[in-house]
Amino acid sequence: MPLDPARTVAELRELQELTGDANGAQRVAWTETWERARDWLRRKVAPTGAVEEIDPAGNQWFTLAGERGDRALLLGGHIDSVPNGGWLDGCLNVLAGLEVLRRVAEEGTPPVPVRLVDWADEEGARFGRSLFGSSAAAGSMRDQAELATLADRDGVALPDALRAHGVELDRAAEARSQLAGAGAYLELHIEQGPVLESLGLPLGVVLGTFGVERSRVTWRGQAAHAGSTPMEQRRDALAGAARLALELRLIAREVGDGAVCTCGGVVCRPGIVTSVVETAEQLLDQRHLDAGKLARLHELAQEASRRFAAEEDLEVEWEKLWSIEPILFDETLIGFADEAVREVAGASHRLPSGPLHDAAEVARAGVPTVMLFVQSLRGLSHTKLEDTKVEHLELAVAALDRLASRALAWLAG
Amino acid sequence: MPLDPARTVAELRELQELTGDANGAQRVAWTETWERARDWLRRKVAPTGAVEEIDPAGNQWFTLAGERGDRALLLGGHIDSVPNGGWLDGCLNVLAGLEVLRRVAEEGTPPVPVRLVDWADEEGARFGRSLFGSSAAAGSMRDQAELATLADRDGVALPDALRAHGVELDRAAEARSQLAGAGAYLELHIEQGPVLESLGLPLGVVLGTFGVERSRVTWRGQAAHAGSTPMEQRRDALAGAARLALELRLIAREVGDGAVCTCGGVVCRPGIVTSVVETAEQLLDQRHLDAGKLARLHELAQEASRRFAAEEDLEVEWEKLWSIEPILFDETLIGFADEAVREVAGASHRLPSGPLHDAAEVARAGVPTVMLFVQSLRGLSHTKLEDTKVEHLELAVAALDRLASRALAWLAG
Repeated sequence: MPLDPARTVAELRELQELTGDANGAQRVAWTETWERARDWLRRKVAPTGAVEEIDPAGNQWFTLAGERGDRALLLGGHIDSVPNGGWLDGCLNVLAGLEVLRRVAEEGTPPVPVRLVDWADEEGARFGRSLFGSSAAAGSMRDQAELATLADRDGVALPDALRAHGVELDRAAEARSQLAGAGAYLELHIEQGPVLESLGLPLGVVLGTFGVERSRVTWRGQAAHAGSTPMEQRRDALAGAARLALELRLIAREVGDGAVCTCGGVVCRPGIVTSVVETAEQLLDQRHLDAGKLARLHELAQEASRRFAAEEDLEVEWEKLWSIEPILFDETLIGFADEAVREVAGASHRLPSGPLHDAAEVARAGVPTVMLFVQSLRGLSHTKLEDTKVEHLELAVAALDRLASRALAWLAG
Repeated sequence: MPLDPARTVAELRELQELTGDANGAQRVAWTETWERARDWLRRKVAPTGAVEEIDPAGNQWFTLAGERGDRALLLGGHIDSVPNGGWLDGCLNVLAGLEVLRRVAEEGTPPVPVRLVDWADEEGARFGRSLFGSSAAAGSMRDQAELATLADRDGVALPDALRAHGVELDRAAEARSQLAGAGAYLELHIEQGPVLESLGLPLGVVLGTFGVERSRVTWRGQAAHAGSTPMEQRRDALAGAARLALELRLIAREVGDGAVCTCGGVVCRPGIVTSVVETAEQLLDQRHLDAGKLARLHELAQEASRRFAAEEDLEVEWEKLWSIEPILFDETLIGFADEAVREVAGASHRLPSGPLHDAAEVARAGVPTVMLFVQSLRGLSHTKLEDTKVEHLELAVAALDRLASRALAWLAG
């Protein structure tokens, strides 16, 4: 039976019917609906002969044995969704992997093991911790003590919720052994951004995931009466925040190479129409695929803020909210992915990923990794409005299959 | 008995002792504490022989008959305060007027009636409607129907609260007759701003009260993921708000002559670190003493916003929150005030008033009016930290007295 990308589209709809409602997908990890989706996947995989294993972090693996036992090719993603999610994020990656697994199984024993993985709780929708299963397998989960204290909105503790699905938090890190013999990891995902749509391209190759610097910048001036305080006697905290919000755009342009900088909001106090703003708290998010350029983005923003503070007679204070280094995908696999995309779609485009993915955790663990992006309509995701053209979904399955063939040959060689 | 400005300072302290507490002044209109202050004032005025009258709006008048019955000289302000208020706003104007009244009474029958007025509920602290008594007397109170629906935080209706102090809301407008024979109105107030302090001057002459345009400007762009949306594909509502906040300063400088423009706050939605801002709501306050220049300020801001909206691919919408025209004081009285201030303090300075005052209502009614400002320390008011140097308070009483003498001679002539 040859590869049948149309079947993947039909199965995406079947899964949507089984686990969604009028508000969208409801496959939140560690719920009954999620288990229903995993059981449905189990029955879909069964005819291929791949052997199922649930690892200590709850990740669901299906393994086709290879002629040799090491250098396994991993395909997959996550079947869990956010509440009221879309029909593609991230089950497309699992279902496309399933179709490739079928094609490989049909052709007989592969040269190396081929494993389909459904990572547990990528979204972190119930407890606020994303990439649960993949970080456990990658050995980068270091927050077990904090995880033990998390509870959902009904007060159910994370360890209890996991236990109801056969997972002991204390043993989750033992999933690490799953990546021991891994040779490569491939993941297909919707872009969740507007780049491919704006370029008129169905598919792209992901270079890696952005490094991120998140900061809170607090500007302090002096509250003053809007009527009785002359312009030249003001110390307006909003002026600092406004200048920095605009300067961020020049900084992103100066550093370039896909740099993005966002001021997600400003909170003004007292925030009334009759007073000059005394305090402005500004949320900043800066991202780059290159660690040095990310550091430069951050440094230029801090320099600019100090200059504005001096010019506006304000105090400015920076607080780090969160940061992560850039994670680069494998050069060889990026090359294979480019070839595969060009074969099925005529043209390829390399782009970074803004959002994090399970693939970033696998790459951090040292497994050669690459991702394919398929065009998102209007860049929407995490909503039932999320969508991708059917013809693009079919091209994406075909591209993943060709990428898998190249990777298999490489791993066998 | 000659004028004794030191007595005014002593009486300010006496009143503070009688009607304040550890949190500041508590003379909120239509309360027992306010009545206590008015009764205290009544006993202070009694020795002058001035005759008391409470008008239908609750304004407290003390009249020294004159040689002729018309062209009365009015002096005064308001003894009510905000809760936790300062020791000077506005009782300084009443107590300084009292001292002048004493001096005039001492000298025998004045050429025209001299009347001290304590306006009822200037602050509007309990029901949110300021300038109650002066607007009733000026004939500009046109919101009786709305006033009848107001209640304080304990649910007491405004008409009931007024009735407990002998005032019938339906009859308040009859206070209009009080200004029928008025020749001039003089009011001394703390500046409530930083201008005189920054100039090192104790006293200033007020040209009038600013006209005000208050607006809500709403910018609409597109929420987009901070990681997956390239800079050049963003429609960032905050960019529009930031540009306008900064442009307002250039517009104020361009129009000049004391123009002030304030962006009091920006509310961003969704307002999270991972999203480009979709909607930014911005509060604007623009003020000028010249009606044409106020209109120009408003027009330039609207033009700029349309330009920014086009450049940033945003929608922009303006909503008028409130406006009032500039109210100019009397040229002749401004000249007398300048002379009086120069005599007692060596130098004078003309400035507009940002906040509104009872004097603006009186001027709107066609009575020639002027105000004196005395320096406020750090521009603070409506707080127990409000303060003015004792020597400046004494100079202020002396200046009001000299201004009253000039006005009396003018009215008699």
